[in-house]
Amino acid sequence: MNSLKQNNKTAISPTRKEDYPEWYQQIIKAADLAEVSPVRGCMTIKPWGYAIWENMQRVLDDKLKATGHKNIYFPLLIPASFLEKEAEQVTGFAKECAVVTHCRLVHNDEGKLVPGSPLEEPYIIRPTSETIIGEAFSRWIQSHRDLPLLVNQWANVMRWEMRTRMFLRTSEFLWQEGHTAHATANEAQTEALKIFDLYAQFAEDYMAMPVIKGEKTATERFPGAVNTYTIEAMMQDRKALQAGTSHFLGQNFAKAFNIKFLGTESREEFAYTTSWGVSTRLIGGLIMTHSDDNGLVLPPKLAPVHVVILPIMHKEEQRAEILAYCDQLAHDLRQIQYDNKRIIVEIDTRELTGGEKAWSWVKKGVPFRVEVGQKECQNNAVFVGRRDLEYKERVSQNRQEFLATIATQLDEMQEKLHKRACDFRKQHTLHIDSKADFYDFFTNTEGGFAEAHWDGNPEIEAKIKQDLNVTIRCIPSQETPQPGKCIFSDNKSPQRVIFAKSY
Amino acid sequence: MNSLKQNNKTAISPTRKEDYPEWYQQIIKAADLAEVSPVRGCMTIKPWGYAIWENMQRVLDDKLKATGHKNIYFPLLIPASFLEKEAEQVTGFAKECAVVTHCRLVHNDEGKLVPGSPLEEPYIIRPTSETIIGEAFSRWIQSHRDLPLLVNQWANVMRWEMRTRMFLRTSEFLWQEGHTAHATANEAQTEALKIFDLYAQFAEDYMAMPVIKGEKTATERFPGAVNTYTIEAMMQDRKALQAGTSHFLGQNFAKAFNIKFLGTESREEFAYTTSWGVSTRLIGGLIMTHSDDNGLVLPPKLAPVHVVILPIMHKEEQRAEILAYCDQLAHDLRQIQYDNKRIIVEIDTRELTGGEKAWSWVKKGVPFRVEVGQKECQNNAVFVGRRDLEYKERVSQNRQEFLATIATQLDEMQEKLHKRACDFRKQHTLHIDSKADFYDFFTNTEGGFAEAHWDGNPEIEAKIKQDLNVTIRCIPSQETPQPGKCIFSDNKSPQRVIFAKSY
Repeated sequence: MNSLKQNNKTAISPTRKEDYPEWYQQIIKAADLAEVSPVRGCMTIKPWGYAIWENMQRVLDDKLKATGHKNIYFPLLIPASFLEKEAEQVTGFAKECAVVTHCRLVHNDEGKLVPGSPLEEPYIIRPTSETIIGEAFSRWIQSHRDLPLLVNQWANVMRWEMRTRMFLRTSEFLWQEGHTAHATANEAQTEALKIFDLYAQFAEDYMAMPVIKGEKTATERFPGAVNTYTIEAMMQDRKALQAGTSHFLGQNFAKAFNIKFLGTESREEFAYTTSWGVSTRLIGGLIMTHSDDNGLVLPPKLAPVHVVILPIMHKEEQRAEILAYCDQLAHDLRQIQYDNKRIIVEIDTRELTGGEKAWSWVKKGVPFRVEVGQKECQNNAVFVGRRDLEYKERVSQNRQEFLATIATQLDEMQEKLHKRACDFRKQHTLHIDSKADFYDFFTNTEGGFAEAHWDGNPEIEAKIKQDLNVTIRCIPSQETPQPGKCIFSDNKSPQRVIFAKSY
Repeated sequence: MNSLKQNNKTAISPTRKEDYPEWYQQIIKAADLAEVSPVRGCMTIKPWGYAIWENMQRVLDDKLKATGHKNIYFPLLIPASFLEKEAEQVTGFAKECAVVTHCRLVHNDEGKLVPGSPLEEPYIIRPTSETIIGEAFSRWIQSHRDLPLLVNQWANVMRWEMRTRMFLRTSEFLWQEGHTAHATANEAQTEALKIFDLYAQFAEDYMAMPVIKGEKTATERFPGAVNTYTIEAMMQDRKALQAGTSHFLGQNFAKAFNIKFLGTESREEFAYTTSWGVSTRLIGGLIMTHSDDNGLVLPPKLAPVHVVILPIMHKEEQRAEILAYCDQLAHDLRQIQYDNKRIIVEIDTRELTGGEKAWSWVKKGVPFRVEVGQKECQNNAVFVGRRDLEYKERVSQNRQEFLATIATQLDEMQEKLHKRACDFRKQHTLHIDSKADFYDFFTNTEGGFAEAHWDGNPEIEAKIKQDLNVTIRCIPSQETPQPGKCIFSDNKSPQRVIFAKSY
């Protein structure tokens, strides 16, 4: 019945151990999350992948609205001249942007479609919207009464990436970008930190993905930012994933775009701004945090389906009874609340064997699979498989008991995934106190997060990056930083920072 | 206190009668829905406008999911060569599309940013996604078991329009586009009609905007469609607005993109496809259906705020009592269900006079305004203004009574707006039975919808368009069409069709 288990094979080949990057691609394929598109560097997000994104959006959007942010929509295109205003953004984004130069296609002599009417000024497809939003803020903000201004947009953006990987780095991606303006540096800083906390809570509570909160070094900051706050997660190959960033932009953008307001003492002042975003990259993080060699594993709070019911019918005459039992079960499950919503249930009536059906949902990461055959109908039972347990650990449960405990069981699975990821990170995070050990860790071992002292010198950062392809992921936010001695220079170090290879 | 009423002026100038197109722009400005952006032909949708769009999205998305459609996301860019495959789409969209030709900006000698690295093949920004989705469908669909395939995407699209008007016609707009594939012509036709009904119900039930359902003539069809179903609404200047379309594409796109499946009898067949969409244009329709010379009027079911509470404080010592009364009122209102959601309430504590506050919400179209001053607190009362009534018709109500009836009152307002729009359309829809009357109607009167017999000849259509700028909006869907004689040719006509000027 289950050929996979008989052969002791995994559903995904290669395994994580055999070839992690290829395993990642195969997980996406097996769960039917997305596919590479015929457009260079872009992906098509398929229904299962998009449903996960919608779940993420709903939670984040609610949180952002609850903290006073309003959604807006700015144009996709940005006049090239806007990039000239913010010198740092130019170096950051001009190198990798899609440029619109014409507004018509015409047939050439060979009958091919080629660009027709040239535009007076080129536009770029937004790589991020600070510049065009800055222009608007300069008009919208006149007085201190117009502040704070807190807006957010859900949008597609484009950065012409050379090496792409689905969800993690694609030329086009979907995200939310928040942009705010404030009267004082302190208020803007507080806002940037508030969102930083919100992102971290979302990662921990919903994605079950532990993150380290910290500041980026000057080298790794967003172009034009005074401070970039980041949440960094460890993937199962022990590389770091930057999962979300929140930027305190000081008055840099306000000066570039002339965002001024009349203060309480009738003096004109530049506003202080922030920007922050998370993207479909989070789906990549979700995949790489929890999935195993049998496919995707979804934390229940973000799963598009919580329970899939699999009717197992060996004979035609059993059909009506089994399907009726499944319908009633689905109905009863849908009355139950989980995470302030109703439990989402699907019944898989496809004409496949029980094993084929079950494994297709294993690969899609659905938290609970419930098999229902003749025996279950007779015994008022259900045969339950939980995605984070071994396939063979399926158990028979009384139907009423299953209904009474399913919400708790979903909670338990959510917590267990979080704990497992925390344990994994802990296991692969080391204090490193000498340069030799540091080089050894990133050369001769499987690596992970190295917590080491660093004196703040960007030249050391550059050297490490060049030697080992390792960067400082963040300077962790700590209540009482412990000073020490830089392991590269012997100079004083204010606190340990996190070094890792990264996506 | 209310300077507007004292001078017998309207809040919006010019009025509808004085200058309808300018009135429309002023409504958008006064309600702060959107603004023209520095990007040619594009608009920025501001929080109030975007919140209306989000409400529309939520309703439509729920309806589409309930009918088995799954959301996906396809790339923004389409290789120019894809347009070559569908000849009709080329003529339709190649003339007005944004073309991406480079992937980098560089500084020229004068220090300006100009396009850098040219791409091997140009891309266009999607004007609609039939072509790129067609390519995917050809890979996804192999067998009859893969059908029907029902997907939808919420996306931005771009058509390089020459004359633009906010919401109604902009170069970039937001929409949903559904794309489906089926095994038989009949199934695809049924799907196209199902969505057509869904759109019409949404317009009537949520937008309170009556629509005429019908088919487009061959001239007015979507490029490549066998049939285009349309919903047409009458605006207050008696012009028609095409509010949504659903296309039965037959096998045209399937043949162009090689979408084939193995049928039940193991014969390879081309699939039948549909596509359909509604866009932010609906917001333009909403504005022009209900708004008056004092500003926007929102049907309660789509209003971002149902009730705004306006504390009126003349003396500082009243402040605490009045604000506490308002908070309690807001709290109680938020416990009440309306249209399966909680009532949405805002308290306006800005430091403005009562009149200024009230009029700002009149202009934003909020269904109910509740003024609370010292008198209301003492009498356990509220002073209520309803947006579809005259400003002076505000009434004092007992607080408990107001709470007990608000959901019904919202329903009543929703219905009244619908009825008022139906009456308006009826008043301006005429049976016209001679060519002379027809030309007179569209030349010497205020015009409207003309229901007239037409023989199906596209040359007549072209002549009328040229002479009067009037088009056939649709051939209405009717159970028992009444035949007659074409008023232009005296030939036989199967039924009356709707002629009108349009947006």
